[in-house]
Amino acid sequence: MADHDKLHGEEAIIALLAPLAEGFAGAFGLQDDCALLTPAPGTELVLETDPVAEGVHFLSSDAPEDVAWKALAVNVSDLAAKGAAPLAYLMALSFPAAPDRAWLTRFAAGLGEAQARFGCQLVGGDTDRRPGPLTITITAIGSVPAGTMVRRATARAGDLVFVSGTIGDAGLGLALRKDASLATAWGLSRAEAEELVARYVRPEPRLALGPTLRAHASAAMDISDGLVKDVGRMCKASDVAAHMAAADVPLSAAVRKVVARSPQMLARLLTAGDDYEVLAAVASGQAQALSAAATAAGVPVTRIGALSAGPARVEVTGPDGRKLALPRATGWDHF
Amino acid sequence: MADHDKLHGEEAIIALLAPLAEGFAGAFGLQDDCALLTPAPGTELVLETDPVAEGVHFLSSDAPEDVAWKALAVNVSDLAAKGAAPLAYLMALSFPAAPDRAWLTRFAAGLGEAQARFGCQLVGGDTDRRPGPLTITITAIGSVPAGTMVRRATARAGDLVFVSGTIGDAGLGLALRKDASLATAWGLSRAEAEELVARYVRPEPRLALGPTLRAHASAAMDISDGLVKDVGRMCKASDVAAHMAAADVPLSAAVRKVVARSPQMLARLLTAGDDYEVLAAVASGQAQALSAAATAAGVPVTRIGALSAGPARVEVTGPDGRKLALPRATGWDHF
Repeated sequence: MADHDKLHGEEAIIALLAPLAEGFAGAFGLQDDCALLTPAPGTELVLETDPVAEGVHFLSSDAPEDVAWKALAVNVSDLAAKGAAPLAYLMALSFPAAPDRAWLTRFAAGLGEAQARFGCQLVGGDTDRRPGPLTITITAIGSVPAGTMVRRATARAGDLVFVSGTIGDAGLGLALRKDASLATAWGLSRAEAEELVARYVRPEPRLALGPTLRAHASAAMDISDGLVKDVGRMCKASDVAAHMAAADVPLSAAVRKVVARSPQMLARLLTAGDDYEVLAAVASGQAQALSAAATAAGVPVTRIGALSAGPARVEVTGPDGRKLALPRATGWDHF
Repeated sequence: MADHDKLHGEEAIIALLAPLAEGFAGAFGLQDDCALLTPAPGTELVLETDPVAEGVHFLSSDAPEDVAWKALAVNVSDLAAKGAAPLAYLMALSFPAAPDRAWLTRFAAGLGEAQARFGCQLVGGDTDRRPGPLTITITAIGSVPAGTMVRRATARAGDLVFVSGTIGDAGLGLALRKDASLATAWGLSRAEAEELVARYVRPEPRLALGPTLRAHASAAMDISDGLVKDVGRMCKASDVAAHMAAADVPLSAAVRKVVARSPQMLARLLTAGDDYEVLAAVASGQAQALSAAATAAGVPVTRIGALSAGPARVEVTGPDGRKLALPRATGWDHF
């Protein structure tokens, strides 16, 4: 049978996805109506859902493997920032037309890679057909030792603000993905441009930071809609004000190169989405321990500011010592 | 502010939904990135997801309260058939345009009614904007005493087949919802027609049957895509053959009236979707206890057939004693 044939029937689709559930007893081979989870004694479950849609969260030209990776990664990233270890996920797939066997086979392969990396399995879901873009709605379930989930609303005045990894790579990666000629305009080598695109296409949830966050962070969340907007959300939930210096925000070598050539890009990077790094508020007495543990875990963190008493607000000082003007101060919002 | 104003900003939408999370500690007022569930000792969690989309699963003319009810009910129905008690749900909402405040207020009111009836709460979710129909993707989480979830694949040859309530009401209700003049053609009173429409619009998950199913059923699942198709799914998962008599299928007074006038409707009713009743396989020694317990729980069940050794198939005998010709033998399939 040709690889571009269409899959007719939900059963044909489920058959292609069933290997992703293999070995997880409570998935029942995707042949039951529900999945069964047996939480380990002394643990609590952390749950969240984040759909991705073609044309909104990914591009129709993206490889099916990458679409799958990203659909799972954006969900697991939320768990990672809560200090949770992924266990399982459910997935609702909506297709505007019967999917190609070849497309779904590659999509399943990408999910397989991602779930192996993140340590979770597909346990259930649903498939339907409807007008509109291809949509992948994953609900991810993780676990934490009881009482240790790291919340968003528990940052305190006096805490220091840390971020993991580097900020802005994915924002530039998306721009490059849409217009490859920007690489030349920005003075980037091909390898540097590819690295930035990879950061957009295959985000790596910071799961290695879980124990560090649980032990040392006052509050944490992932950065998905732009650093400034997400810092603002933590401030609002915790009723604190954040003071950050743009010069302290960790940038990759490639991004530093772009900013050196076009300093006005800095403000854009701080408000671009898709970073999937961790934002953490940390009591000053815990900062050194957090830093050391993060480095030991292979995901260095950088102090980018501090929190003071509310009302909630975010102030970013530019490299010139003055308040930075932010082009999209509110960051990414669908509405 | 006018009631037909648009809600701009995810925060405005979350504010309208937050009362649905009130009192559930792990929902954090919908202000965190994840929800936290603390399973009771000795329980396991039962999870599933089933999206509904405008124009596919509900009509754009449906009242927002009813859309909300149905979106939650179709998910809770799956839990009910597994013997699980609903605890919580996550909801991803996708709007093609900023929603009206009035629409979302009514939608939230319908969800409030439904979750109060079903005994669960909204604990998290996501809101986005994308082309295509309004879509509501709920992931429902229930609990069962450890080891008691009722599966689909555990029906055995020799078991009897039972269904709860009555079959076909919602199928006729949908037809009436699309063309009210059918009521006259079918000889239905206004009250009878309204009753059938209500069965389509506000399905009632058979939660009261939970303990009965856990105690007495070999296997169970909900009937959502047509009785014959769903019996076929149980047969396939359990590798058994089902033998049913159409005359044994429980019908409401209104549906009996339609069938008396148009006997050919019977086959259509057995393959119509949206019943949201429970299908159960029951060892013959358990049948009487199951029946009695179901009646005591207020949801009578009816024996409609029996299972024999596979290969999997479904045979339905018509009222004339001959094999019934089924117009849509495969029932509802999106592909």
